Parts: sequence; C-alpha cells; structure tokens
Amino acid sequence: MTENTSERTAIEATIFAYFQALNEANINAILDLYSKDPVMLPFLQPAVVGTDAVRANYEGTFQLIRFEVQPTIQEVVQISPDWAYVRTDTSGTFTPIRTGEGAPSAFHELFLLRKTGDDRWQIARYSFSPTGPLPAI
Amino acid sequence: MTENTSERTAIEATIFAYFQALNEANINAILDLYSKDPVMLPFLQPAVVGTDAVRANYEGTFQLIRFEVQPTIQEVVQISPDWAYVRTDTSGTFTPIRTGEGAPSAFHELFLLRKTGDDRWQIARYSFSPTGPLPAI
Repeated sequence: MTENTSERTAIEATIFAYFQALNEANINAILDLYSKDPVMLPFLQPAVVGTDAVRANYEGTFQLIRFEVQPTIQEVVQISPDWAYVRTDTSGTFTPIRTGEGAPSAFHELFLLRKTGDDRWQIARYSFSPTGPLPAI
Repeated sequence: MTENTSERTAIEATIFAYFQALNEANINAILDLYSKDPVMLPFLQPAVVGTDAVRANYEGTFQLIRFEVQPTIQEVVQISPDWAYVRTDTSGTFTPIRTGEGAPSAFHELFLLRKTGDDRWQIARYSFSPTGPLPAI
C-alpha cells in the first residue's frame, strides 16, 4: 500500500483511544473500538473469541487491575484498503486492586485492525504480553 | 480476498513447518521460515526485532526448553496478495531441560505472514503466549 497519511492518522486514533479507554477501565468505550467478531489473545489465558467473551474478559480484568499506561507506536502498516496492523510497546503502572500498590510495567502489543463500513478502523485481533513478571493480582 | 486454496495450502505449510522445526529445536530451519525483517513478540520478554535477535532468542530458549507441540489452525486469512494472518492454538509438552520433566502445555499464537519474491509465505510478525502458567525453567 502507498503510505496514506489520513488512513494512518485514523488507525493511530483507534490505538490511542484504546489505551485511553483501558486506562479509564471504560468497557463500553473499549468494546466500541473492537470489530464485530473480535479475538483477543491475552497472556496466560486461552484465546477470547467473540464480543461477549471479550466483554467478560475486560470485566474480569477490571475487577482485579487498573492500568495507567502510555503506548509507543512502533509500526503502523496498512496491508490492504481495509486491513492494517499496528505494533506497540506500552509502559506505565499496573495496579492490583487487592493491594492498591502500583508497580512499573511494560507490555508489547500486536493489533490487527479492520476498516468497517462506516470508515472506522476497528480492532479485529489483539495479542499482548508483559515484557517481564507482573505483581500478583 | 477471494479464497484461494493453493495459497491457503502454502500458508499452512509454513505454519506446520514452523512447529516441526520448533519441536526439533532446529534454529536454521526456523530462521529460514522467517522474513528478512522479523519481529517476534514472546510472553514475558521484550519484543525481539531483527534476524540476529530472533536467532539469539531461539538459541536461549533451546538451552532451557524443549517443545513437543501440535498446532490447531483456528484461522487462515489472506488479507492481500502478499499478506496473511494465521491464528493457532497449540498443545503438547513443555520440558525444562534443567529438570527433564515434561509438563502438559497449551499456547495461542498469532502469525503475520508475508509472501516473498520467491513465492514463499514467511513469518514476518509472530506473537504467542501460554494459556496458563508453565513449569519453572
């Protein structure tokens, strides 16, 4: 694909909105950024397939953890008119709700985004892992 | 993309060859399946960028671990003439070399493959994580 600045900006906007919603533990805002048939690939958990399962996964996560992380976009590659991938690193604070003690954390992420009929880039596949051990939750 | 059976077969062949080479701890065979500018996203480690770093990562892994895993292909999606993604689950045995005691293990994987000039589908981006805790290595 030829580099397209406005598409790149739109793709990045979805990624930044995702991490803002994650930091706010805003599940509806997060789900709004996903496509209709999402698959999430979290570390130390089986694949999470479909909107209902993805919602339940975030509900479970936010009962245990708060995030305050900032992404660094390492790659944005538009593969076709309606598919792109984005690779990010994030760093910030991971706070188990049980202890309230925030710990520095770093993650890497791989997103596959799909452009939907209403010209929005949405998260279709999402894989992530911390770059090292996290505090017990 | 229109479904293309021969392309799908070629894409799947790369994935099956990857897990065979992983099970054999055959680093040269593994590296031959990667593109020229690979990025590997392992769990609990930072992103591994470039062929030299990917090679070093497998060298480190195979000093500590042997795998005997079988993939189940969950999705094969050809996105463009020269890009595809594949999502797999694997299950099998994870054996720390230190103990020699194999333990059942399951992983999920997300591959981004790129078709190269010589009509081979190669691994360009690869993210994976176990679906639950692993034995200490």
